[in-house]
Amino acid sequence: MSFLDRIATVRRWDPDAYRPFMVEDTTLGRVGHDFATRLRDFPDAFVVSDRAVTLVPELADFEARSAAVHEAMLALRDAGELPRWRDEFYPVVVRWGDEPWLKLERAAVPLFGVRGFGVHLNGIVRAPDGLKMWVGKRARNKATAPGKLDHLVGGGQPYGLGVRDNLIKECGEEAAIPPELAGRAVAVGAVSYRCERDEGLRDDVLFVYDLALPADFRPVNTDGEIEWFELWSFADVLARVRDSEDFKFNVALVIIDFAVRHGMLTPDDPDYQEIVEGLRFPELEWA
Amino acid sequence: MSFLDRIATVRRWDPDAYRPFMVEDTTLGRVGHDFATRLRDFPDAFVVSDRAVTLVPELADFEARSAAVHEAMLALRDAGELPRWRDEFYPVVVRWGDEPWLKLERAAVPLFGVRGFGVHLNGIVRAPDGLKMWVGKRARNKATAPGKLDHLVGGGQPYGLGVRDNLIKECGEEAAIPPELAGRAVAVGAVSYRCERDEGLRDDVLFVYDLALPADFRPVNTDGEIEWFELWSFADVLARVRDSEDFKFNVALVIIDFAVRHGMLTPDDPDYQEIVEGLRFPELEWA
Repeated sequence: MSFLDRIATVRRWDPDAYRPFMVEDTTLGRVGHDFATRLRDFPDAFVVSDRAVTLVPELADFEARSAAVHEAMLALRDAGELPRWRDEFYPVVVRWGDEPWLKLERAAVPLFGVRGFGVHLNGIVRAPDGLKMWVGKRARNKATAPGKLDHLVGGGQPYGLGVRDNLIKECGEEAAIPPELAGRAVAVGAVSYRCERDEGLRDDVLFVYDLALPADFRPVNTDGEIEWFELWSFADVLARVRDSEDFKFNVALVIIDFAVRHGMLTPDDPDYQEIVEGLRFPELEWA
Repeated sequence: MSFLDRIATVRRWDPDAYRPFMVEDTTLGRVGHDFATRLRDFPDAFVVSDRAVTLVPELADFEARSAAVHEAMLALRDAGELPRWRDEFYPVVVRWGDEPWLKLERAAVPLFGVRGFGVHLNGIVRAPDGLKMWVGKRARNKATAPGKLDHLVGGGQPYGLGVRDNLIKECGEEAAIPPELAGRAVAVGAVSYRCERDEGLRDDVLFVYDLALPADFRPVNTDGEIEWFELWSFADVLARVRDSEDFKFNVALVIIDFAVRHGMLTPDDPDYQEIVEGLRFPELEWA
């Protein structure tokens, strides 16, 4: 097993298994063919052809698009076809910060293959005996990745909340990090990927933060989603990422990015270039 | 002017202006059509068709390929068509660390559009009044980017030298940084780009290092390539990158990457995602 195995995991998808999801002339995501066929049952929201799924053109603004799509999603939920329903909206954009085309129930995001955004926090401690990182173990009853190893804090980026505000909120909910401590977190970049998972096509951008914590800080999970937190040496964290699939697939990516940014992997490693280039998926088109 | 303007600069190239440069079945670069026509004059090295430039198949190993191509390059030099001749070899690879297919005179690298590798060092000082960065001004008689602002240390990555060894060598040559101080540099990632410049198609990967220097350190240029060094506040460096083209085009990219890694740009900036994704060009193909 190697870091490249972890990166290969977040690159696996079959372009032929999808057709574009479009609003007007803009491709915002990719819909699997079976789900596209199902969407024919909701002609008030979707125009489904063999080549694309497009929103009904008469849905001319954010509110109209969001309402028509949400009505269809509620029907799917009631039919038992959206079992991971979250009651939380994601904005539908290509680029975070753009005006959203619509908002979409979070559980449906991978079914439309639209970009999902999140925040991930590396919680570290610079101890006399070396760098350490807080590791969480996800509860066994979580809908996604039960029992996997996780970051101290990580969460989706909902509609209508700033990225930093969301991070500070998640820090409180997931690990009882007070706002004044969470506010010291430093934005250090983003990782991105497109891959097929059980829940659909994940086309994600994760905004990454590093937070150096005091040695006596102890996280407390307050929302029942984490079984335990432990402070590991970063060398142990990195070895576990390399040698197993015990970390949640996207958490592994963020940890590899941390190792790259802090000189734990270097250009004299023959896999370095492929690792560095594998941490970002270039969705945006360039002239 | 904006950071996105700096990134657009390193993305500009016209795929139709080139045909592939291949060894066996592997595409290693891109040759402009005029240069491809000129290479017809060297049938011992190149097979030129309308669709590709391929090395003569009988050149079966590294030594044979390198010798045949070098003979052609020497002829071009003697004809005055390689005026920036460096007398320095680059390895021809897609991925740093792979076994090279051949070695190629550095001046010819952009004419074949093969990947070029380099090292760039952010020389910083953490002062009581804020973060500072050493800035150099390139001599007016340099072949490339005369008079532009530059890093403390940056250089090409030649054939046959490790990346870290090359960095330490360049630190001595360009800024008189002693090896024990240069050895504290931390590998922090890579930026990459593909763009057309006067010298041809630049398809570069720059390995990036950060080095925190003592406040009393003073760089001395020993090879005549730098007119002066100055210690600037990082805020001034970043504003100059954003508002002008005074920094060498690829140095600007590495400075933007520094700002991203150190929280001077954040996800709540609407350009953030495009900036972060614009810092790496994904040459490698993914299954």
